[in-house]
Amino acid sequence: MQDRIHNFNAGPAALPLPVLEEIRDSFLNFAGSGMSITEVSHRSKWFDDVINDAIERTKRLLKLDDQYHILFLQGGASMQFCMAPLNFLSDGRSADYINTGTWSTKAIKEAKIQKKPIKVVASSEDKNFCYIPKNISFNKDAAYVHLTSNNTIKGTQFESLPDTGTVPMIIDMSSDFMSRPVDMSKIGMIYAGAQKNIGPAGVCMVIIRQDLLDLVPDNIPSMLSYATFANTNSMYNTPPCFAIYTIQLVMKWLEETIGGLEKMDARNREKADLLYNFIDASGFYRATAEPGSRSLMNVTFRLPDETLEKTFVAKAIENKMGGLKGHRSVGGCRASIYNATGIDAVKDLVSFMTQFEKTSG
Amino acid sequence: MQDRIHNFNAGPAALPLPVLEEIRDSFLNFAGSGMSITEVSHRSKWFDDVINDAIERTKRLLKLDDQYHILFLQGGASMQFCMAPLNFLSDGRSADYINTGTWSTKAIKEAKIQKKPIKVVASSEDKNFCYIPKNISFNKDAAYVHLTSNNTIKGTQFESLPDTGTVPMIIDMSSDFMSRPVDMSKIGMIYAGAQKNIGPAGVCMVIIRQDLLDLVPDNIPSMLSYATFANTNSMYNTPPCFAIYTIQLVMKWLEETIGGLEKMDARNREKADLLYNFIDASGFYRATAEPGSRSLMNVTFRLPDETLEKTFVAKAIENKMGGLKGHRSVGGCRASIYNATGIDAVKDLVSFMTQFEKTSG
Repeated sequence: MQDRIHNFNAGPAALPLPVLEEIRDSFLNFAGSGMSITEVSHRSKWFDDVINDAIERTKRLLKLDDQYHILFLQGGASMQFCMAPLNFLSDGRSADYINTGTWSTKAIKEAKIQKKPIKVVASSEDKNFCYIPKNISFNKDAAYVHLTSNNTIKGTQFESLPDTGTVPMIIDMSSDFMSRPVDMSKIGMIYAGAQKNIGPAGVCMVIIRQDLLDLVPDNIPSMLSYATFANTNSMYNTPPCFAIYTIQLVMKWLEETIGGLEKMDARNREKADLLYNFIDASGFYRATAEPGSRSLMNVTFRLPDETLEKTFVAKAIENKMGGLKGHRSVGGCRASIYNATGIDAVKDLVSFMTQFEKTSG
Repeated sequence: MQDRIHNFNAGPAALPLPVLEEIRDSFLNFAGSGMSITEVSHRSKWFDDVINDAIERTKRLLKLDDQYHILFLQGGASMQFCMAPLNFLSDGRSADYINTGTWSTKAIKEAKIQKKPIKVVASSEDKNFCYIPKNISFNKDAAYVHLTSNNTIKGTQFESLPDTGTVPMIIDMSSDFMSRPVDMSKIGMIYAGAQKNIGPAGVCMVIIRQDLLDLVPDNIPSMLSYATFANTNSMYNTPPCFAIYTIQLVMKWLEETIGGLEKMDARNREKADLLYNFIDASGFYRATAEPGSRSLMNVTFRLPDETLEKTFVAKAIENKMGGLKGHRSVGGCRASIYNATGIDAVKDLVSFMTQFEKTSG
């Protein structure tokens, strides 16, 4: 598609072109139903096939056993900040939280609003969240350890997951979900707003282990209970059908076109290495995240001054590269290079950055 | 489109064909952005134009003044069953509920789960919800009166709204929102899951008056507070962009193609009259809702026996008419004839029903 741009948005973000083309081509008549996917009943065989295929593919890609339930919720990761403590801390127990930036901070805030006795066991706030804390001591009696695996705004990411002993981790994986294989052995729950790596905005995937589901009390509102969704295959009420359909197609693309999460990981590392190596070799651009804590998804960097940063973003758009402005809370520049962003886009970006430095440096 | 069927689904349901065509045609490159609407940032000028246009059109169509805020939430009407009592009954006050079927019953249940002291002031449960209660006495000190304006499953609808005196009404309008003009004078809040009359599943529109917003306490989770959405133009976190975009296009179709809610109402009455008059004149089909309480949106009816009903639904599908099976909880047949279902579809249905009676009656 000649008129498409390279999309470096942080989310909503680029989706695989073959997925978009399939949605477009079947949009007036989905799977021979004579209806759009937006018009098909969620209680139909057509939609059952969609949601069950999305679940099965996710299970295969992540090598999940039957302890795990795959749910589709609404309200984004922000709703999970509220739901996790509501569902798992009803008996007065505490949970440990690691604070690595804006989203962790919000998760902590929503637990505290509910007066849950949580503990912040590590934080990188002392250095403006430019690194991932290591060697953390966890409380053995915590119901869970909460962490954000990738920090979209600060451009940091856990290289590997911490050792939480017997305490299950709950991980906000919104911005690196399905970008690499995951060791599930100590994970009790993963949640991920779809709009970075797996679909459009409007659906949040939740992968929850049976023992956490067993903690859910029955005196909370139905729509805030993980049990409601687990007991109904996410169809207690009408689910966000179009968003789930898009996820199904993205999972199919991951399995059949990419070839699984190991291969996706290799591609993502190649893209990130190209960009970080270029930035580190440059005296003009400067990466903001510390080595060892850098995100493979969101590459945050600065130019010598803010005026140059503005010009950089504007010139990039003229060159058909969008979404390079940093988050409004931190400024600077950011290239989000999620699964659907190809190596060609990163190569073009590096060429542009080289050229921009020559003319402006 | 020769391969499309007449869609009588109860929701997700038919959408206007020109809306679907516009989505399809711009799906790889929205408004010259070089991105799909599913890939565009919600913090971009492109999406600001979408959400603000959807809001302005809704305000014009419903003739709303500046007391009302228009919000886009997730979780469907079911999440509103939980949020309304949480937001408006924090000071220990009570609310009145009218029970007219499955959805009202769930709204009542979710208020009771939260131990809110609500009162059911009227119910049509005595006659299996086949009518709308009239001459109801309301409690003058109630914070609000809750009702479901149209009952998708039982096929009933309030012909006109009750007189609640000075107590504001909160109305679940999921299945008749934007199908006719609304007298807003006593309405404090309307909510509507989009997937019947205005869009795809995955977004719930909320219209809330300032005085109700003033009741919202500040010690509830952010994503459960109407104030959060009102203070951020529904963008505290990433909203369901694709669903809001579809709503924008449906509102544009209502304004520019249909010509407003009076004209939409006339069309809907013509369709419903045609179908009810045919059923009432028949000795074969039997409408289940009482005259005076009948829904213009969901026409529920029975055939002489369940075997014939099964054959009827199957033969209808062969004749390219889908979604005629009644809700699994009540059985029978149901033709949902929302805004996007044309008079041609209803005429074809009546022809088919005439023919079916001849060959089976």
